[in-house]
Amino acid sequence: MPTTLPLRPTDSEARALARALIGAARHAALGVIHPDTGAPFVSRIAFGCIDGVPLTLISDLALHARAMGRNPAVSVLIGEPGPKGDPLTHPRLTLQATARHIARASAEHAQKRGLWLEKHPKATLYIDFADFTFVELVPTSAMLNGGFGKAFALTPADLIDPA
Amino acid sequence: MPTTLPLRPTDSEARALARALIGAARHAALGVIHPDTGAPFVSRIAFGCIDGVPLTLISDLALHARAMGRNPAVSVLIGEPGPKGDPLTHPRLTLQATARHIARASAEHAQKRGLWLEKHPKATLYIDFADFTFVELVPTSAMLNGGFGKAFALTPADLIDPA
Repeated sequence: MPTTLPLRPTDSEARALARALIGAARHAALGVIHPDTGAPFVSRIAFGCIDGVPLTLISDLALHARAMGRNPAVSVLIGEPGPKGDPLTHPRLTLQATARHIARASAEHAQKRGLWLEKHPKATLYIDFADFTFVELVPTSAMLNGGFGKAFALTPADLIDPA
Repeated sequence: MPTTLPLRPTDSEARALARALIGAARHAALGVIHPDTGAPFVSRIAFGCIDGVPLTLISDLALHARAMGRNPAVSVLIGEPGPKGDPLTHPRLTLQATARHIARASAEHAQKRGLWLEKHPKATLYIDFADFTFVELVPTSAMLNGGFGKAFALTPADLIDPA
């Protein structure tokens, strides 16, 4: 009996599925290391992919913000199951990533702000609150699960559309 | 400016919402410590609450199984946003928990198996595969987020219906 899940060789279909999941996601589950206990801590975040890099907009007051300030190694699960069928047959993608804060008083923040609002218009309600900051989630690797027995290990290059 | 999110005092409404989220969830995002890197790793799991204890059914071949064997400290995010509105206004619950494997050749496994299939009939397809095992996710604490500015720190007792 194998002791780890067998991986399939990465093909163009797997890359296309991963890119579609990243492109469609508006929210995600973020895993961080809890700054007080060292245990994993998972919370919901807003999610978008801007200029080819996964991005979130978070409050500095939230536990996950403090956690990423302490330890930038994070994991991001995207790809929501629909309301029907076994949720485990729906494709999903786990990114392993490094969090990078973007200073609010920067040209980069202003540029991300405009693009973010195009995709997340409801964020106008809070995007200019003093505690809200963009954090890039720069992928270091990814695991695609396209359903039972369809697992792929992906590289950061696999996630970026060459077009 | 406060440096952490202000928490509201736990009330009966918060307890009821947390219990409703746990009772309704059929899948969840599981955060573990990656056994090779020490980083967080988030994946989708099947989820159910049986005999008042959160439970999952996982393959021993999956990375999260190996991770929990090494380090049983986990985090579980439940509560799916609907397709409409800002996903961050939808309530969700983060459990901090300890993973406890249930031996396949045990009366406990047989009992969980029957109750699991009542709630997850599609699991009949794989529940008896030799690598599938139940793992209890025993809560140690929880964080309820009922929407912007509505955060509560809950105890394990808050999550259990006294009825």
